[in-house]
Amino acid sequence: MSSRTFQVQKGHFYAVGVGPGNADLLTLRAVNVIKNSQVIICPKSAASRSSLALKIIRDFVSDQEIIEHVYPMQRSEKDVRESWLRASDIIAGHCLQNKTVTQVTLGDPHVYSTCAYILPIIEETLGADKIHIIPGITALQAAAANFIQPLTTQEDRLTLMAGSDMANVEKALGTCETLVLYKAGKKLGELFDLLKKYNLEQNARVVFNAEMHGKEKIYIGLEKALEDQSGYLACVIVHIGRRKWG
Amino acid sequence: MSSRTFQVQKGHFYAVGVGPGNADLLTLRAVNVIKNSQVIICPKSAASRSSLALKIIRDFVSDQEIIEHVYPMQRSEKDVRESWLRASDIIAGHCLQNKTVTQVTLGDPHVYSTCAYILPIIEETLGADKIHIIPGITALQAAAANFIQPLTTQEDRLTLMAGSDMANVEKALGTCETLVLYKAGKKLGELFDLLKKYNLEQNARVVFNAEMHGKEKIYIGLEKALEDQSGYLACVIVHIGRRKWG
Repeated sequence: MSSRTFQVQKGHFYAVGVGPGNADLLTLRAVNVIKNSQVIICPKSAASRSSLALKIIRDFVSDQEIIEHVYPMQRSEKDVRESWLRASDIIAGHCLQNKTVTQVTLGDPHVYSTCAYILPIIEETLGADKIHIIPGITALQAAAANFIQPLTTQEDRLTLMAGSDMANVEKALGTCETLVLYKAGKKLGELFDLLKKYNLEQNARVVFNAEMHGKEKIYIGLEKALEDQSGYLACVIVHIGRRKWG
Repeated sequence: MSSRTFQVQKGHFYAVGVGPGNADLLTLRAVNVIKNSQVIICPKSAASRSSLALKIIRDFVSDQEIIEHVYPMQRSEKDVRESWLRASDIIAGHCLQNKTVTQVTLGDPHVYSTCAYILPIIEETLGADKIHIIPGITALQAAAANFIQPLTTQEDRLTLMAGSDMANVEKALGTCETLVLYKAGKKLGELFDLLKKYNLEQNARVVFNAEMHGKEKIYIGLEKALEDQSGYLACVIVHIGRRKWG
């Protein structure tokens, strides 16, 4: 059961999750795919100097062709789609030349990932059979691993969402036992006020830059995290309660 | 950033997620910890002949001491706690002899895992500093990887819960864009009726035994999956909608 070998195939496309930051959180399958690819697409936001995903995989890169694809960091559907349409053309072109093409993405390819825009476009050209998703450890899991407290037990419900709209966050507090917020870095003040209202401030855990060496910061309770300006890559876990077996 | 070495330490306890089934979904860190442990605790349900987690890691086992811990598969708080109290005593005892002890668990140690009962007990004996959680790929991620459709994009909310109580599942349909149900194998009929009511039957994907070689079964739409008796390890993903950037 354990030792089925994953075949990396010519002309196929692999969306590979590389985890949150430290290279040793890659799976063996991800390493296998990366090493056996001819072309690796590394997303890079317009604001950053280099691709974080590329940094994570650098120990597994030798003679693969590396393409850093710059994408806009705006919440603009149109700009984002145009950027990824260009990337999809490049990917499909290489696959049609019978090359193995990988796009590396932070975390998991199916969880708030840049892949989402590429996959349906490539599917039209290559067909679903030539597309493979390699799951990766999410920032949520890496953040939770800093604490003894499990995310879910027994009948708990876990909700993962963006921490951008406090009205929606407030609704979610009533419908799950564990709430996880991504992208909450800019709203920690509002979140603090909201959690105080429900007496949940001490139940929050904040991890900035999970698994990024030298940059990871961990807080129990939200108050101290408020003073931290670590910004974008913030994951907040709020333990609201437990739902036991009935 | 990528190459911080994870130190496996004597006298420490590691809760290691081994993913859903295939050995190549272990992370490099998990392999490192397993290889460098003196004692490995492998949970095994009373009903099964051998530990599934042990099967997954067998390529990384040489001279480590293997302890198969049999636990009850009932939803009984008392029986479960008693069983894990015994396991915790064994673990703490070995750690106090300065051995490196690992418990392997399917999926991720913090997501509906058997670890949940052990961690607080061991924390009392060893202290939190000697306990480490190594995240693993969840069945949810492995199931989702079979499809092109992402779990979450933009402002989507994802809720993960047990598929045991249809009244709660119905509520959740209204509060997230993607709903994932674990342990829904016995309730697929009721779930089918519920999803039909909301015209969501075709939006469901069912994966039985994700990443278990020769046992994995994949269904788009719930109707066909109803006839399958693959049972316990069922993961259902329901795509309810998308929530775009505002």
